[in-house]
Amino acid sequence: MQSFQPPHRVLMGPGPSDVSPRVLAALARPTIGHLDPEFQALMEEIKGALQRLMNAPDHACIPLPAPGTAGMEAAIMNLLEPGDRAVIAVNGAFGGRMADMAGRAGATVVTVDHEWGKPVDPDRVAAALAEAPTKVLAFVHAETSTGVRSDAATLCALAKTHRALSIVDCVTSLGGIPVDVAAWGADVVYSGTQKCLSAPPGLSPIAISKAAQAAISGRKEKVRNWLLDFNLIMAYWGGEGGRTYHHTAPINALYGLHESLVALFEEGHQAAMVRHARTHEALAAGVEALGLTFLVEPKWRLPQLNTVIVPDGVDEAAVRTHVLKAWDLEIGAGLGPLKGKVWRIGLMGASATPWHVRLCLTALSEALAAQGVQTPVADAIAAADKVLAA
Amino acid sequence: MQSFQPPHRVLMGPGPSDVSPRVLAALARPTIGHLDPEFQALMEEIKGALQRLMNAPDHACIPLPAPGTAGMEAAIMNLLEPGDRAVIAVNGAFGGRMADMAGRAGATVVTVDHEWGKPVDPDRVAAALAEAPTKVLAFVHAETSTGVRSDAATLCALAKTHRALSIVDCVTSLGGIPVDVAAWGADVVYSGTQKCLSAPPGLSPIAISKAAQAAISGRKEKVRNWLLDFNLIMAYWGGEGGRTYHHTAPINALYGLHESLVALFEEGHQAAMVRHARTHEALAAGVEALGLTFLVEPKWRLPQLNTVIVPDGVDEAAVRTHVLKAWDLEIGAGLGPLKGKVWRIGLMGASATPWHVRLCLTALSEALAAQGVQTPVADAIAAADKVLAA
Repeated sequence: MQSFQPPHRVLMGPGPSDVSPRVLAALARPTIGHLDPEFQALMEEIKGALQRLMNAPDHACIPLPAPGTAGMEAAIMNLLEPGDRAVIAVNGAFGGRMADMAGRAGATVVTVDHEWGKPVDPDRVAAALAEAPTKVLAFVHAETSTGVRSDAATLCALAKTHRALSIVDCVTSLGGIPVDVAAWGADVVYSGTQKCLSAPPGLSPIAISKAAQAAISGRKEKVRNWLLDFNLIMAYWGGEGGRTYHHTAPINALYGLHESLVALFEEGHQAAMVRHARTHEALAAGVEALGLTFLVEPKWRLPQLNTVIVPDGVDEAAVRTHVLKAWDLEIGAGLGPLKGKVWRIGLMGASATPWHVRLCLTALSEALAAQGVQTPVADAIAAADKVLAA
Repeated sequence: MQSFQPPHRVLMGPGPSDVSPRVLAALARPTIGHLDPEFQALMEEIKGALQRLMNAPDHACIPLPAPGTAGMEAAIMNLLEPGDRAVIAVNGAFGGRMADMAGRAGATVVTVDHEWGKPVDPDRVAAALAEAPTKVLAFVHAETSTGVRSDAATLCALAKTHRALSIVDCVTSLGGIPVDVAAWGADVVYSGTQKCLSAPPGLSPIAISKAAQAAISGRKEKVRNWLLDFNLIMAYWGGEGGRTYHHTAPINALYGLHESLVALFEEGHQAAMVRHARTHEALAAGVEALGLTFLVEPKWRLPQLNTVIVPDGVDEAAVRTHVLKAWDLEIGAGLGPLKGKVWRIGLMGASATPWHVRLCLTALSEALAAQGVQTPVADAIAAADKVLAA
């Protein structure tokens, strides 16, 4: 058994994205105690930064000590208990996961199922909410499995109209497209660190509204999860009243998240979103110049997750293997009904640069050529460059 | 908001312990994808290393993607469901936490309560097991809140006699004192990374016996926890049949754990335990030379967690503040009924060295002097040195 030296990789899959040297360096700073006064100051800074990033000044914002799925589980398990009705919009893998969790919470689960690749339909959600009193409406803002954005503002407003609490999965959206918790009136919003924030996977930032906090305080049963019980975890992260020991925070991972937030605010949150949009447009122009097409119609495409349809006769997995071997480039496969049918190309955080766009077009064209499909790579790069120069 | 530069600290509390430069450096290696073939190879190495470390060749061993408490929650939530009876030995904070979780799993919970500072009494546990058919016996091998070791071999054997599955909390023991899963016949054993393994907090290694796996497969209800559902998590870490996507593994944290295991095997697992024992004996000799006493009788003391009684008239918190300010030294406070009455001094992993022993005695003596309590520091260091030279 020897020290592990990771291979060189360029990460353009559905996450993790490339982590910048400054965030990697932050991870390696000496570990201090989780009850250290200076660590407490760091926690307070992270809380404030998350409130700003999500525009959630009245929400409690903390990073949960486990990967993005922990945010989903915390939201579902804290808000739902036996007897509660939950309406869950499913338009990809992650909506389906929410429904599974809501069942484990003991809730009566009503799913509103959509074709993968389409946004959530507010009319069908409204109809489901109108059928019976509902505790929670849950949906995915940015479906990582399909590359689709849904209309969070409209869906959160529907929840309010029907006196339901809203849960919004922003794992892939936060940092890449606007996540405006206050404008949406969203109750619980969570994300991950390994997408557009470009920190390593392992933490899940979450925002909890006052209404959601009141609902949690008023539960009849204890939350079916100790580690993610907000009543306990908020006391650990709580400010004025001091901190109550709960778990041991993942100190070095929090150094990394903190540094990624410092970097994001240095660049400017708006500027980072413009960068995501522009690199997406460049990649899209290049992909189309190669003769390939997108799964998702332009209006609902996520700039940070590009779902490209595998042309007839092309071996999907062979292309991924080629770009990994020849270019150290990771792109993602399709999940569920999209398995073998699409590639998922991420332009997230530090992976959303012109260099990544040009490399990806080059590698993709070469991999297609290896299967006998000739594509005009020079035209594709020129098309991308034209967008980037505009 | 600026980059965070942690202060200089020497970590001799109940965890985290000092993290060595080589483990810190491993954390900062470039992030790769969690589905990367080379990452899969790393996962296999970690699984094998945990089996060796715990002597659990027939158990499934993986690191859960959250702090040590996740191991406790995974064990309880996967093995227990409504209608099951659980006997839980409580002799400190962490036994109490197990009982709380077992209630959330829907089990009928019978606690066997002990005075804090005493080991679990096998006779009283046997009596509780004899009262009714029991699904699970859970106890803490090394109580971090008191510094007490309990007799894991005897307690696991009692569980077997009464056809119960055993859950053993080894958060503080693993790497510091023998954890012999095969010899004990333990079913589920879990630990943390931030104690005697000297990696940062954030992961929870766990071992699951074939009998426990069968019990989980035969559950009537789904596990009340999606992220920690062994049926799902084992498929993600599973070898031969390939891997099924579940969460996104905390890549860089796993680099750190891997490196800490490489370092431990380089030193030798047995050698590391001898080092923990010897530094403890040195500290104990020094502490006694200072005129201080231990909470726990020698037979049941944990070498890695030394619970020292605060002398009458001494302000417990002021001593901790003094050593932190003057020596950058972190030692731990008492919890629950021991609050204000003891200090908890860790000698874990990279913090179990002669240097740490000498520094701690020096700082402690100085802090006591600041409160008007004179102690013979030169004698204490000489007493410690004598043990170390033997």
